[in-house]
Amino acid sequence: MSTILISEVGPRDGLQSIDPVMPLAAKCAWIDALVDAGIREIEVGSFVPAKLLPQLADTAQVVAHARTHPGLIVAVLVPNARGAENALAAGAHKLTLPLSASETHSLKNLRRTHAQVLEDAAAIAAMCRAAPYKVHFEGSVSTAFGCTLEGIVTEAKVVELAEKLMAAGADEVGLSDTTGYANPAQVRSVVRAVHAAIGAEHLTGLHLHNTRGLGLANVIAGLDVGITTFDASLGGLGGCPFAPGASGNIVTEDLVFMLEAMGHDTGIDLDKLLKVRDILAAALPSEPLYGFTPDAGLPLGFRQAA
Amino acid sequence: MSTILISEVGPRDGLQSIDPVMPLAAKCAWIDALVDAGIREIEVGSFVPAKLLPQLADTAQVVAHARTHPGLIVAVLVPNARGAENALAAGAHKLTLPLSASETHSLKNLRRTHAQVLEDAAAIAAMCRAAPYKVHFEGSVSTAFGCTLEGIVTEAKVVELAEKLMAAGADEVGLSDTTGYANPAQVRSVVRAVHAAIGAEHLTGLHLHNTRGLGLANVIAGLDVGITTFDASLGGLGGCPFAPGASGNIVTEDLVFMLEAMGHDTGIDLDKLLKVRDILAAALPSEPLYGFTPDAGLPLGFRQAA
Repeated sequence: MSTILISEVGPRDGLQSIDPVMPLAAKCAWIDALVDAGIREIEVGSFVPAKLLPQLADTAQVVAHARTHPGLIVAVLVPNARGAENALAAGAHKLTLPLSASETHSLKNLRRTHAQVLEDAAAIAAMCRAAPYKVHFEGSVSTAFGCTLEGIVTEAKVVELAEKLMAAGADEVGLSDTTGYANPAQVRSVVRAVHAAIGAEHLTGLHLHNTRGLGLANVIAGLDVGITTFDASLGGLGGCPFAPGASGNIVTEDLVFMLEAMGHDTGIDLDKLLKVRDILAAALPSEPLYGFTPDAGLPLGFRQAA
Repeated sequence: MSTILISEVGPRDGLQSIDPVMPLAAKCAWIDALVDAGIREIEVGSFVPAKLLPQLADTAQVVAHARTHPGLIVAVLVPNARGAENALAAGAHKLTLPLSASETHSLKNLRRTHAQVLEDAAAIAAMCRAAPYKVHFEGSVSTAFGCTLEGIVTEAKVVELAEKLMAAGADEVGLSDTTGYANPAQVRSVVRAVHAAIGAEHLTGLHLHNTRGLGLANVIAGLDVGITTFDASLGGLGGCPFAPGASGNIVTEDLVFMLEAMGHDTGIDLDKLLKVRDILAAALPSEPLYGFTPDAGLPLGFRQAA
């Protein structure tokens, strides 16, 4: 049994998928409570133009607040070099650049070809190396398990893009099941192929969705092939089973329950984590919160290792 | 990749967990549609007194109808020897006797000690051997992964009861996560321990619940240790995330999608299976139906093997 890092992405992936704009004070209270429950990495926002995602317009201020927590890895999404510039100015510890394996998706969402995104990756890697503090730069292959526009995404394409991201200077590659298309056999196969190409130490994290209910099954597959970091969203914020295009992140509470029940060490206090939902429910009263474990409660006799 | 048997338990476990009584004609139409979609085993009811479970009072008639489908394994639950007598008179192909690993649960639910249930098991095994047609008798260890009354259930207790069921004359033992307490590490460990004790050929099936969202993750764990039969319920009928004591069976549609996407052969046509929900929705308009795959739809480019 091993130590597993849960990267909470609700403040970025959750909030960008819903209409209400959460006030800065609520975001900070949410982050504080997550840290108090033992969360060690949070993707706190995205450096995109405010007119595109007003929900995340205060990301620089959120980064500044999150940085006051010693030891917390403050992660952000950056869509391009300008976003990375702003992220570094704000002091983010980790920058993630998404590169969609489906070029159709890349063109439609970012209006950029693979070659253009990879140019950005090289520029961002150089900026990170030149930064006055230590920065971690992840290239994230999105739609890595299938695309709602292109359908099947080949393993060869994912491997090729992972290699190119590393060649561009990324510290690490992540794989993202943006569309909720992945299945456990595919997760094992694609991760093994990427590990063989770039080294297992350069692919340690998966971003999985629960769109078809397979999120935690895919986590088990990831664990089997050595993955040690999983993204998740408290209450599955931003997901909606009736809108397949929506986020549908795996629910942090269910993920932590599963891992802790299996004997893995997440460093997270489940009782405290379950209470963080109250902050979310109060700040976003119109948003449904998901999760089976919060509804069912912890099993009788369940004890977390100290 | 292997052939996996899905045992549809909705007509028994689903219907016994809800208040409305489904008319016989609707049960038959449901079974017909399941068979047409490729389902090869259905637990069609339970031979319990009608005053206890009026929803299943017509089980003998349902068995008679289900037997008209060539090749279909018509399974039923029997709580005791009298139930088995009725099941054999009706012509059921497979009888399952539950034996709760938690004796507290056994006393509260069946008012019987382990010793009493094991006596019944021996009597039922003798009746099955003497039957004028071939009958399969399964002893099912329920609450095998934990109990809402006793809490932790030890692996040693499950192994002991599996051995005693085989000694009493069962053809096979099943394990049931009645309470939705199981986690993937535990599933692997308990199945391996029982396999070591009674032989892998005598434990091939798991009955898993999704109470804490881990149902499909536990299926992956079961596949890893050689399990080839999984119970599931169409639309997760009878489950309710707000009532932890309720059934919460894993959803057949999600299970079949996962297995087929992984390349396993279930023999089930997913498009047809998804349409069977319409029958259920029309016959039980007040009951919520669950499932992620039905809401999200099949992935673009998804093709089942012929």
